[in-house]
Amino acid sequence: MGYAFGIDIGGTTVKMGFFQKEEGLLEKWEIATQKGNDPTVVLEDIKVAIYACLERHHVSKEDVEGIGMAAPGPVTEGGLLRGTVNIGWGDVYLGKEGERIFDISPVYIANDARVAALGEAIYGAGVGEKSMMLLTLGTGIGGGVVFDGTIHVGSTGVAGEIGHCTVDPYETAPCSCGKYGCLEQYASATGMVRVAKRFLAEEDMPSVLRDKENLTAKDLWDGVTAGDPLSLMIGKHVSRLLGITIANACYVVDPDLVVIGGGVSAAGEVLLDMVIAEYKPQVFPHSRGKKFALAKLRNEAGIYGAAALVFTV
Amino acid sequence: MGYAFGIDIGGTTVKMGFFQKEEGLLEKWEIATQKGNDPTVVLEDIKVAIYACLERHHVSKEDVEGIGMAAPGPVTEGGLLRGTVNIGWGDVYLGKEGERIFDISPVYIANDARVAALGEAIYGAGVGEKSMMLLTLGTGIGGGVVFDGTIHVGSTGVAGEIGHCTVDPYETAPCSCGKYGCLEQYASATGMVRVAKRFLAEEDMPSVLRDKENLTAKDLWDGVTAGDPLSLMIGKHVSRLLGITIANACYVVDPDLVVIGGGVSAAGEVLLDMVIAEYKPQVFPHSRGKKFALAKLRNEAGIYGAAALVFTV
Repeated sequence: MGYAFGIDIGGTTVKMGFFQKEEGLLEKWEIATQKGNDPTVVLEDIKVAIYACLERHHVSKEDVEGIGMAAPGPVTEGGLLRGTVNIGWGDVYLGKEGERIFDISPVYIANDARVAALGEAIYGAGVGEKSMMLLTLGTGIGGGVVFDGTIHVGSTGVAGEIGHCTVDPYETAPCSCGKYGCLEQYASATGMVRVAKRFLAEEDMPSVLRDKENLTAKDLWDGVTAGDPLSLMIGKHVSRLLGITIANACYVVDPDLVVIGGGVSAAGEVLLDMVIAEYKPQVFPHSRGKKFALAKLRNEAGIYGAAALVFTV
Repeated sequence: MGYAFGIDIGGTTVKMGFFQKEEGLLEKWEIATQKGNDPTVVLEDIKVAIYACLERHHVSKEDVEGIGMAAPGPVTEGGLLRGTVNIGWGDVYLGKEGERIFDISPVYIANDARVAALGEAIYGAGVGEKSMMLLTLGTGIGGGVVFDGTIHVGSTGVAGEIGHCTVDPYETAPCSCGKYGCLEQYASATGMVRVAKRFLAEEDMPSVLRDKENLTAKDLWDGVTAGDPLSLMIGKHVSRLLGITIANACYVVDPDLVVIGGGVSAAGEVLLDMVIAEYKPQVFPHSRGKKFALAKLRNEAGIYGAAALVFTV
């Protein structure tokens, strides 16, 4: 008893994790995501992977407490996964479909960024905290809010979509979501590059960033770490927009801990320190001591969080 | 049994409500708030009012389930009321002080805007909804978030301070809180007048607002209702900033219902409709159907919410 699968369905691969409640992660591996409009195809591939794993570990399906799945689209409290653009799916009750196909119950489903937040809350940076907010700075910006070990989903499933909070009401370029001025346009990996290119065009000062052919967010934060003045200026600018948005979110939910994750967070303490410095002037004095941390589980946050969907019920 | 006092401590008056769980509000009245740095003085006045009320109703203090109090300052989850500027108090555990002075327990304490949100959730516009967010548009902007009949306080007591979310990162005039670009600077009663005066100075078009000696937010919304083109332009501008901020808050907590209250909300449906119209383009399509409502309890939201602190424990 006490086994669970934590499954993180992405646009390219499906990350699989096999967990035991007390022992934690027993095995992890990946399978390819077959794109197309039929989720059944992906679920059938996952089914094969699940049963092969159970056989490897000599565990019967009756000893599986449940299966948790993360998917890259909004999921309502009722378990409806809506429009998973980068795989090609329409609206689907993926948990119910999973139960039917896997012949294992229950199957839980939640948004991948929210599941990563749960993973960090239960197994990562948030251990011991009552409430936590995660921002993942990757190609886009994901996020999630966790209260008392449970994802706060919200009535339409968008609670935690902090990357699409508007931070510049005067922006004229559209975000990938169709709105204007979303945090993601400035503080995701691609957003940071966009901002950096604007500064490079507008400012005359020399910079290590000028030599880069394919400028990346990593180049920017390497420049900040090296003390390159223009990199510092750009880093401060995007950190300010992060600080404002995090402060705004704290004026709504005021969590015990704010966690920054995603590929860009590999920049580490230098990024975290700049964001904290820009957050502080944006809140009342007695809220300035808020705890911040870097995410710990990196790419495994999804499978850990998906397992937590099962174990923390 | 089943009696409670709901007490709303303001800068000028203390609103008192005497409730019975099934019958609701039995009596309401007000006493003056004695300003000064000693909360004991105000609590002693409240004590006299409480015991006189119990005598009038032939109710013994043993039949009082508890006392709920709302105060105009931030209150932590631990019950610490911090810096009540407009009365003159420093940090105080007002609930514990109340229990000592009233000789009645328990005494609950929470921020007045949060308590008003609870009042609306339990007895007003939010009846039947699982989660609710309130914005009160008054001299300032207050707010509160209620989940499952409980105020979401947050780790430092600022959850629900939606009026101090930054909506314009380029603002150069400071808010009363010391930050720049808070929603309150544009969408409180005073903020709307400030915005209106700026439009009146910058635009040439004629307007009914130009005749007003002491322009008020009511004048603005009367102008909007009457179809005055400049009033409509200003109303749309402040509604857009409200729509953006509400959308941002919904990307964090995504409540079932958003309620607009406070003096400015007397403008009614015309205000609500403009805010909804500006909210919609700021969120993902499947979140555009969010329920909005006007507050119902007006000035009594505080005493109702304070009573709910007792009855919903």
